[in-house]
Formats: sequence, C-alpha cells, structure tokens
Amino acid sequence: MQFQHLRHRSIYACICVSDFKENLEAVSKAISECSFLAIDGEFTGLNTSSHNIHAFDTPEERYQKLRQGAMEFLLVQFGICTFHFDEEQGKYITRAFSFYVFPRPHNRQAPDIRFLCQSSSIDFMVAQNFDFNKVFKDGIPYLLPSDEQKLRESLQQKHQIMEKSDVSSPGFSPSSHQKNQPKIPAEHREFIEDVCKKVEEFEKSDLDVMSLAPCNGYARLLIYRNVKARFPARIQMETNTDNKKVQYIVVSKTKSPEDAKRKLEEKKAEDYEQLDDAVGFSKVIRMISQSGKLVVGHNMLLDVLHTLHQFISPLPEDYEEFKSMTKCCLPRLLDTKLMATRPPLKDQLQYFSLGELHKTLQSKPFVVPNIVFPEDVPSYDNSGEQLHQAGYDAYITGLCFITMANYLGSVQKPPQDAVTPDSPLLQGYVNRLYLMRINDIPYIDLSRPDPLPSREHVFHVRFPSEWKASDLNHLFSPFGNIQIVWLDETSAFVGLYKKEQAHTVLRALTKGDNYHVISYNDYRKRITELTPTNQRKRKSPVSDVDLPAKRPRSQKQETKRDITTIPEEAEDEEVNGEEAKEGNEIDMTEEDAVTQDHSEDLGGWVEMW
Amino acid sequence: MQFQHLRHRSIYACICVSDFKENLEAVSKAISECSFLAIDGEFTGLNTSSHNIHAFDTPEERYQKLRQGAMEFLLVQFGICTFHFDEEQGKYITRAFSFYVFPRPHNRQAPDIRFLCQSSSIDFMVAQNFDFNKVFKDGIPYLLPSDEQKLRESLQQKHQIMEKSDVSSPGFSPSSHQKNQPKIPAEHREFIEDVCKKVEEFEKSDLDVMSLAPCNGYARLLIYRNVKARFPARIQMETNTDNKKVQYIVVSKTKSPEDAKRKLEEKKAEDYEQLDDAVGFSKVIRMISQSGKLVVGHNMLLDVLHTLHQFISPLPEDYEEFKSMTKCCLPRLLDTKLMATRPPLKDQLQYFSLGELHKTLQSKPFVVPNIVFPEDVPSYDNSGEQLHQAGYDAYITGLCFITMANYLGSVQKPPQDAVTPDSPLLQGYVNRLYLMRINDIPYIDLSRPDPLPSREHVFHVRFPSEWKASDLNHLFSPFGNIQIVWLDETSAFVGLYKKEQAHTVLRALTKGDNYHVISYNDYRKRITELTPTNQRKRKSPVSDVDLPAKRPRSQKQETKRDITTIPEEAEDEEVNGEEAKEGNEIDMTEEDAVTQDHSEDLGGWVEMW
Repeated sequence: MQFQHLRHRSIYACICVSDFKENLEAVSKAISECSFLAIDGEFTGLNTSSHNIHAFDTPEERYQKLRQGAMEFLLVQFGICTFHFDEEQGKYITRAFSFYVFPRPHNRQAPDIRFLCQSSSIDFMVAQNFDFNKVFKDGIPYLLPSDEQKLRESLQQKHQIMEKSDVSSPGFSPSSHQKNQPKIPAEHREFIEDVCKKVEEFEKSDLDVMSLAPCNGYARLLIYRNVKARFPARIQMETNTDNKKVQYIVVSKTKSPEDAKRKLEEKKAEDYEQLDDAVGFSKVIRMISQSGKLVVGHNMLLDVLHTLHQFISPLPEDYEEFKSMTKCCLPRLLDTKLMATRPPLKDQLQYFSLGELHKTLQSKPFVVPNIVFPEDVPSYDNSGEQLHQAGYDAYITGLCFITMANYLGSVQKPPQDAVTPDSPLLQGYVNRLYLMRINDIPYIDLSRPDPLPSREHVFHVRFPSEWKASDLNHLFSPFGNIQIVWLDETSAFVGLYKKEQAHTVLRALTKGDNYHVISYNDYRKRITELTPTNQRKRKSPVSDVDLPAKRPRSQKQETKRDITTIPEEAEDEEVNGEEAKEGNEIDMTEEDAVTQDHSEDLGGWVEMW
Repeated sequence: MQFQHLRHRSIYACICVSDFKENLEAVSKAISECSFLAIDGEFTGLNTSSHNIHAFDTPEERYQKLRQGAMEFLLVQFGICTFHFDEEQGKYITRAFSFYVFPRPHNRQAPDIRFLCQSSSIDFMVAQNFDFNKVFKDGIPYLLPSDEQKLRESLQQKHQIMEKSDVSSPGFSPSSHQKNQPKIPAEHREFIEDVCKKVEEFEKSDLDVMSLAPCNGYARLLIYRNVKARFPARIQMETNTDNKKVQYIVVSKTKSPEDAKRKLEEKKAEDYEQLDDAVGFSKVIRMISQSGKLVVGHNMLLDVLHTLHQFISPLPEDYEEFKSMTKCCLPRLLDTKLMATRPPLKDQLQYFSLGELHKTLQSKPFVVPNIVFPEDVPSYDNSGEQLHQAGYDAYITGLCFITMANYLGSVQKPPQDAVTPDSPLLQGYVNRLYLMRINDIPYIDLSRPDPLPSREHVFHVRFPSEWKASDLNHLFSPFGNIQIVWLDETSAFVGLYKKEQAHTVLRALTKGDNYHVISYNDYRKRITELTPTNQRKRKSPVSDVDLPAKRPRSQKQETKRDITTIPEEAEDEEVNGEEAKEGNEIDMTEEDAVTQDHSEDLGGWVEMW
C-alpha cells in the first residue's frame, strides 16, 4: 500500500537475506508477545488489464479478479508491526519490521518463478525510492510448504544415490563402474589430458583442495567422467558457483573411506541447511499463522490474498474454499478501512486512504495513543528509505486501529478507555474484509454468507458499438441519473440513483430496435446457465465470462476518461460513499461522463488537464 | 545475452532518459556513417514455463513459442555497436551504446504495460550488477507507432475542447457555463471556502502563480469546479505532479484574452513535446530500420523478436507474416552464431556461446581485427557496470563477426583480406536466423522457405504415466540409441541416432498393449487436422496443441534432470552439434538419462551434485 504526506523518524528494522537469520528470533519474540499485529505488503502490480474491478462485482467475482492479480504479481516487501499493550503503563510497546522478499532459485531444483509487473506500479514505487536492486539481490527467499516437501524428498533420493555410489560426484553410479572408460571426443582430448595432469600433480601435493578453471556444463561432464575413471575413489569433485554465477569444479582428496563418509555427511548437512535457508520468509508467515493473534490491515484483501498465495498455499479456484482456507491460516483478521467506512467512525471521517485517515485521526475527537519503541529492535535511520516502507505503513495502520478502537470505547455509555483487541466492541469488524468500490456490499464475510443486496435498480444493456455515455444517459433520462459500468464496446451495467424508479424501467425500455435491456438478476441467471459447472469452478471464473476486458481506449473524447487508476490512489483511494455518489452525479450531469469508478474517473479527468 | 570471462576498458556510452536527447544526434550520426552495426538485448526473462523449446520443433512452432516470451517479457537494455570501416587505415572505427529502456507511463493516456519477469533471469542479471533501479527510474520510454498515433489524435481532441471552452481547466466546458454554481457537499464547504479565500488573496497580490496544498482527485475536482465558478476566466488552474507523484493544483492569473490564448498555445506545445519525449527510444530503432544497414547479432532471434514487438509492431500470429514484417523492418540481418556453426568456421570451433567464441577467435588461425574508439563518443569507465552491458556484448559480437568474415576471406584462393559486410562471401548467412537446439534445421530463412529435413527417424509415442526414460530406451533398444523429447507425462518424441533403422521401427512396434507409436509425420498431419484453421492462425498456435507444458517435475530420480536451463547458458550455450549428439549418446547409455536438450541436461546433471 502506498502512503503519502507523512514523515517520521525511522522506527522499523529493514531486513533482507543477509540479516534475516540473526533477526528471526527477535521477530518471533515480537509476534508471540504482542497483543495484535498490523501487516502491509508492496506488490509489483495491482490489476491485470483483463480483470477490472467495478461497482457491480459480486464478492465472488471480485475474489476471482483479485485472485488473478495475486497469482501473477509478486509481493516484494512485507511489513509487520507488532503492538504489545502494557496494562500498567497504559502504553503500547511497538516493534516494526520491513522484509524484502524475492523467490531466488537457490538451486537447480528450486521453482523458477515467473511474475508480472505493472509499469505504473513500478514507476510509482521507484519514485518513492523503493529499492528494486535490494529486493532482487538481497530479498529473502521463501517456499510454499508443498515445494519444500518436494525438495526435501528429492534431497533424500539424491543422498541415497550418493550413498550407493559412495562418491559425491556424478557419472559414477554403480552401473557405470562396470563400463570401461568413456571415450573422449577428439577435439577435447587435449583439454581433458591437461585437467588430468593437473589433478595428478594435485594428488601428489600436500594440498587438500584445488579449484579448476571455470568451464561450461559439457566440459564439466567430460571432466567428471574421465577424471573419475582415472582416479577412482581417491579424489572427489563438486561444482561450485561464484557470485557472478560462473561455475567451476573443485577437486578434493579422499584420504580414507571414513574420510569419504565424513565428507558425504557434511554434504548432506549442507544440503539440508540450504533447504532451510530457502524456506526463509515463509517461517515468519507460519509464526503469524500459528500465533492466532489478531492481524490488522488497511484495505487488506489484496495483502491477504498475496500472503496466502505466496507463502502458504496457491489460492483455490473455489470461493468458499478460499474463505475456509483464510479462516484456517489467518484466523483473526481486521480491516481498518472497514472500521473507518462504517458508522460510527464513518460520520467523523471524509477520506479513507491510509494517509488521509491517519491525518484525520490526529485531531479531535480522536486521541493519539501512547506508543513506545523499545531499543532492543534493530532499527536504522534512513529517512529516504523510510517513507512507503511496508513496515512503516503497517505501523501507521496499527496506530489508526488503536485510535479508532479507543474512539469506539469513548462513545459508549459509560465511556470505556483503552479498548483492547479482544473487546466485544470490535467483534463486528473481525474477519470481514473491506470490498473497494462496491457501494452495496461493504465486505467479504469470512465467517458467514456475504451480504446480498437487492440490485433491482441495476440493468444490463446491449447497444451498438458507436454508443457513448450520452446515449445511455439519454436512454435512461426518464429515470434520473445513472451510474454506468462498461463491460465492453457493446454492453454495460446501468444503475439508477433513484432506486424507486427501478420497476418502471423494464416496462418502458426492455427492447428497442438497436438496444436491449434486461434486469441485473436475469442477466446473472443467464450467465450462470451459460457457464458449464466445471468451468464455473475452473480457470475461467464467471467474471471472465460476463465481464470482458476493460473497454478498449477509443478516440471518443467521452470514453477517454475510461482510464487506469491513479497509482498513489489505486490501492486505497476512496471518499465517503455518499460523496462518491454525489460526485458521480455532478460528474455525469455536468460532464456527461463515463464513470466506472469515482476516483478513477476523477483521476483521469483531472489528469487530462 | 549474458556474457562471461572478459574484462575490457569501458568502451561504450551508457544512456538513460536524462541524457538521451543530448546523445540522440551522436547515435544518429554513428548509425548513418557505419558499415554495419551489432545489437544485443537484455530481457527480464527467457521462456514462459508453458512454452519449452525442443529439438523437434518446426521453425513455425519455435516462432510461436519464442513469440509468447517476446510478448510477455520485457527488453530492458538495448546495446548498439556501430563499425565504420576506414579503407585507408584498414581499421574499424567503432562506437558502442547501452540504452536503458522502460515503458514509463508518461501520462494518464499512456499504455500501462504489464510485463513478465523470470526469477532465474533477474537473479542472474543482478549478480552481474545489472542496475534495475536505473532501468525503472531512468529508463528511456518508448512507444509503438500505433500508440503514438492514438495519443496524437487524443491530444488534438483535447486541444479542440480547450479552444472551445477557451480556458485550460476542466469542469468548464461550454455546457457547464449555463449551469448554476455546483453545490458543495456539506463536509467540504469549509475546505472549499478556505481555498477560495486563498485564491482571492492571490488575485489581489502581484504574484503570477500560486501552488495549492496537495489533495486527492475528488478534492481537486471540487476546487476546479467551485473556484472556476467564482472567478470565471480571470484565473487558470492545472494539476502538477511532483517527483513523489504527489498531485497539487497550480493557480495562475489570466491577465487578458490574449494572455489566455498564449497560455493555451504554450500548453499545446508542451503537450506535443511531452509526446515526442514519450516516443523516446523508438526513434533509435526507426533510425536503424531506415538505415538499411547490416544488423549483426549473436543467436539473435530473440533480440529480433523483442525489437520488433516492443518498438515497431506487435508480433503477428502468422509465421509468414512475421517473416515479411522482419524483412521490411530490418532488411539485412546476420547471425554470428549461424556463421560459427556452419562450415568452414564450425571446423575451427568447439563452443559457440558469445564468450567462448570470442575467446577462441583471439588465437590462430584467427586474426583479431584493428579497432579504433574515437574520443567524440560519450563514454565513462565503470568496470563494474562494464561487463554484461548490452553495448559491450554488441561490441564483442561485431568483433567476432569481423574476425570470422576475415577468416572466410583468408581461406579463399587467392586469399582476400578485409572482407566487408557487402562481400559475396557473406551472402549465404544474410537473413538467416540461427535456431537453437534443432540439429536438423539450422536456421529460419527470412527470404525463402525454411529447410525441410526428413524426420522419418522420429516417432511419437504414447505410454503409461509411470514410464521413465529407461522404459523408452528399452522399447527402442533394438534400434540403437535414441533421443527423447518429453511432451507430457504420457507422450514423447523419440529420435533414432541410427537413422537407417527408421523403416524397421513401425513394423516392429506400432502398437503394444500399453504403448502406441506413430511416425512423426503422421502425428504432425493429425495435429494439423485436429486444429481448426482459424485457431491455427490464432491465439493457440499449433505448438500449444501438440506440445503441452514441460513434463512436471516428478520425484523420479531419472526425470529429475528434466530441469530449467542454466541461466548463463540459457540464451546461448551450445557445443558443436556432433559432440552434442555424442554427448547425448554417452549420456543415455551411461546415465539412462532423459535428455530434452544437451546443455540443459548437463546443466541439470552437473548442478545436481
């Protein structure tokens, strides 16, 4: 989540692969001691161009769309801020961490991840001094438990073979013992002779280890085979890779069978340690999951999806399965944006992006909580890197949560002070994830069926591709202002602001000679009928079927404003729902606008000039 | 292309967005004066996991697979090295450039590119000190001609509207003149009043320009509307974005209608300059294309595909269309890897990656050419950045080309010295792009139909999913050693090394109770029949149909070696074809190996230990 307008002394530890191990203990301690923790993620992109969210998504459609993004884009920084409430002092003791994470393939067997980037997101992150070299070079690796299991098994097999062939070099499995020495392609004889001479000298010397000159994979195989055949069991070879990824063979002596066995054991231990390092950041997520602590985020649906998909298990295609998986892996979630956008807090607030929210919460009627940063947490001051660090945004999120929780207490009769995470006052928000830009469905409910609003005032319209917003506005003019959601060049959802007009629409319109109107609910039914059951559960979610790619940019001035979201606002920018609507109304009457979404629309509009 | 083993004083200019304009002239001069130029690209990834190339691809299948990668991965650095032959001195005067390129969205209307990254490629590039922050932050933008056209038209429309409404702020189109002042949502009245007061004071002051505090898109729209309504035509507003992407409104005075008109003209000029900047690096590619000069690359098919797709026009789905498009945009191409792998040069060489080739070409019978670097080219010494820079690899490629061309001259009777790019000796290589890892089809021929070898010794086999390489080897044991290309868990191509055995196979095998063998040609026919014509020309190329995703890693030791390519060798690592085969043979008899590809196989094998 990107985050504006604030400066603050550095209060978080920025952790990458080099100092991950030494900090893991401190992180574990912070998580196990805290009263709750806040999280925030930074991603390489937000939405795939073919999966645009809109105001008439159902929660399941929204999940399917965001799932696509979460599967394709990469979470590259994970922020954690733990808050421990000290009853005596009435203070929160706080620890914040920013982790750079990157799926570095630690060896040949490791998964070679492909991930998507969105240039507007990258451009914005770089403008905030996000350090991509650091992510790519020093990012902490991670593994899904399933991949870890596979790698563990493959190690076991490898070790079995090594024990059988009782040497730690390839090309020397028992079978190959019986074979005579492999013939060397003519043009390589000289090269191999050279190497063998070197090895012979090395053998006679007092040296224990010798590195050969770097060479390619084919040359390495020839060396393995021929050198091994000439010096059976007396020497060992393995391939090393330097920090420039240049590969070369290291030759070492085998003094005795015991020595060989010892080397084998060392090799095994080394392999398992390497695997343990590869599990890396996944350990932290497992700690959070196992702690069962309340996990707070701001507009956190994307953060949750990425966290599950990247560190715990690929996101299921089935929506209900996703709900139960989330409940099982992150049993207590709370979204500060949901808190802020519901009464009673909603009535005290105007803007709901993390930055704006934090600003508002610093003045009356809100009270800034008492926070202490202990010194025992690694932390350096680097104001350049400070802003837009996930650990810092997580800290602000936790701060907003405490402030809003305390406000809820203050408006009780009698007032309560210091509302803690387990307070009944918060139960209404727990395990409900805020849904952006859907006015009539505020959240995904992980514990219950989602809210199911009437959409009788919404209609699906087919029309000629020449049609513009003005044509739709004109068609619906008898019924007042409308909200338009383009599905493609020839279809759209149209919502009435005057819901009471809903019943009259179909009588008046239904089918003209060049357009066709049906109710939202009928449209839904047809789509569901049209979609094979297996497909409904599989790769192409319903949303793909009924919500084609974003309307292609056309040269019509009106549709110009159908543009991508303003980066800094993309994840999180929203204004109070009522205003948003009013904004749309002003907008459409004055500008005859195509409005898919309030902030997008304004962003595009204002940007035009 | 990644490139090893060499150090050299810095000989290229490293150009990013900040110094692009000032260097464009020098680049243009270098291109127009040169005898030929060499190119090289750096990409964010090489192959999508679902499109593995293999030894029995047809040229069209290979194109379809590489096209997928070229469409999804991003070219982030483009290297150009120009070589001008000075007849008098018998020297080449050389200029090398490395351009960082990145599709930064220069405004709201610009395309917001999504691109793929491959973690192994990123990991390798970072290990070579490739600077991703520099790419993302200072990369030179670019536009496809088609996108440039769209943006130009949208600017024209925008300017028309601005002229109509004769103010350069939104929310003030003629229509809105007639409206009364828009009502302000209650909770924003105070905020708007504040702004209006500020503007009023500003109006009375001697200042010409005033910046308002940053605020979000919705607030900006309210300001535009209400301030405009109160101060019609006397002041102008526009939105600026600071380097942190924070947006704020700048208010300026309109002294007179002439003044307003002048400001409008300035705004127009500014818009067109901004668009010109956005075209950016595409200009350089257009220069190369229009120069008609010989363009040399090493194993350049991927470079060509990325160059066309990113800077000239999206790659066509139709293979023949691709050929003619390439001929039209890059009329003279020469691939040094094709030169090196064909007689007579092949007989003098062993390894063909750029690094190894360059090494070999520095000693007899080859003669290192005489190269001069003029001082008038921007160039700085930074040995860290030096290696693996596209400009440097392009330089090495050109060097190899000259050396090999001169060698061709030296073996003529009578010997010719200084073979220039237009020499008949080179005609056999022009417009033929090297095909990796296809032994029987050395190149794509842009000017003629591709070579069409007999594949009578190749068979398509279906078998139970439990089958391993050993089962296939056993099945075909009567016919000698085989080459296996896995298509999926239950099918593979099998090639005989003893081609003369081909005719006996079908008589002997065809269909067993748990396997099914047909000839490669019959298999091809069936696939083509099975694929609807429209599909054949459309999204799912033949290759998608008959060549499913790479065999999923299983836990079988044998198939362990079916792994992704070694990064540094991925683009380019190959050994002399004959050896490769021999290697495979040794390999399969000794290790009972699954070999999709020689170097992959070795890479995986050697890496295992």
